[in-house]
Amino acid sequence: MSLLEDLNWRHAVKAYNPEKKVSQENIDKIVEAARLAPTSSGLQPFKVLVVSNQDLKEKLVKGALNPECMRDCSHVIVFAAWNRYTEERIDKVYNFTTDERGLPRGRFSSYTDKLKALYLNQPAEENFAHIARQTYIALGLALAQAAELKVDTTPAEGFSNAVVDEVLELDKLGLKSVSLMYVGVADNENDWIAHMKKVRIPTNEFLVEY
Amino acid sequence: MSLLEDLNWRHAVKAYNPEKKVSQENIDKIVEAARLAPTSSGLQPFKVLVVSNQDLKEKLVKGALNPECMRDCSHVIVFAAWNRYTEERIDKVYNFTTDERGLPRGRFSSYTDKLKALYLNQPAEENFAHIARQTYIALGLALAQAAELKVDTTPAEGFSNAVVDEVLELDKLGLKSVSLMYVGVADNENDWIAHMKKVRIPTNEFLVEY
Repeated sequence: MSLLEDLNWRHAVKAYNPEKKVSQENIDKIVEAARLAPTSSGLQPFKVLVVSNQDLKEKLVKGALNPECMRDCSHVIVFAAWNRYTEERIDKVYNFTTDERGLPRGRFSSYTDKLKALYLNQPAEENFAHIARQTYIALGLALAQAAELKVDTTPAEGFSNAVVDEVLELDKLGLKSVSLMYVGVADNENDWIAHMKKVRIPTNEFLVEY
Repeated sequence: MSLLEDLNWRHAVKAYNPEKKVSQENIDKIVEAARLAPTSSGLQPFKVLVVSNQDLKEKLVKGALNPECMRDCSHVIVFAAWNRYTEERIDKVYNFTTDERGLPRGRFSSYTDKLKALYLNQPAEENFAHIARQTYIALGLALAQAAELKVDTTPAEGFSNAVVDEVLELDKLGLKSVSLMYVGVADNENDWIAHMKKVRIPTNEFLVEY
């Protein structure tokens, strides 16, 4: 199937079958799509946390707007962004990149100097706003990868960041939660949206051509 | 090819061949992937503007960090977000959705009332931050769609929002530019990154499993 067919197939699942689990192979592919996501200046300023441990999921449930989805899905994927850009983090990414490419470290220093001048002098909030945006590219690609595999998902912003950050101790990783993705096997009988028409804004309103 | 193969294939192109154009059919598919992107509460709070007119592109060039890419690519796609959520905009989307599904208007009013209570009382900046994030899901899917078609692209935040907003008169549409996507045919000889290894953070650093 093509990407467009996959995107037409998927929807935000509202009920999961708690007895059924998604294979590790498929989870790995979903994570890989997120890992390959392009990000601003290639900094990949986030991590992906995959929670399948049911006890841990139960602790996360108290922060979820859709607790049933959180509880019954097979895996909860957390997109967690760097709390801010730092010189060390920028250097680590670029040192790895030059090492991998067989280039001398510092090869891109005129560029990374500009990044540092921009980001390290920004207010924390503005800094994080830019970082958080990048995670949505990966969220989109992870959803698309799941759809290609015919794995059911729900992208979710409806949760308490404070609860997720605390339960997963994200501050110790220098991270803050941004979005969630529930992954599992839909319970079609109880998924009220499964049998409804997929609706999107018509192309003639969505698109302006010049 | 699979999505993962497509994502491994693509890179952020640094030089385009100005003589070559991308077909309308392929542009349509890229826009369609963006249109099918999931968004928070299904509000799709943005539009996609596609600029192929060379005179207009030249006006945009003065706001671009990579003016050659802007000038030489075939199409510039602008992801432009609603300047803010409004009652009218939320109602329009949900009225269309219920109409398309053959449901009575207001079927989701308890939900949309909650959305309005949340968004309409937010400071403008917080409101726009949430909207802008949604556009990145669509950016990711548009890049993936282009990769499936083996169409070259460059996602870009390196531009003057003020110039783009002014040239395209986005305020008249109640929109603000967020990101750009250059679409075209790469000039491989001058694309310095084309022959370099694609580098991403290793999975064992990117992923945390529980």
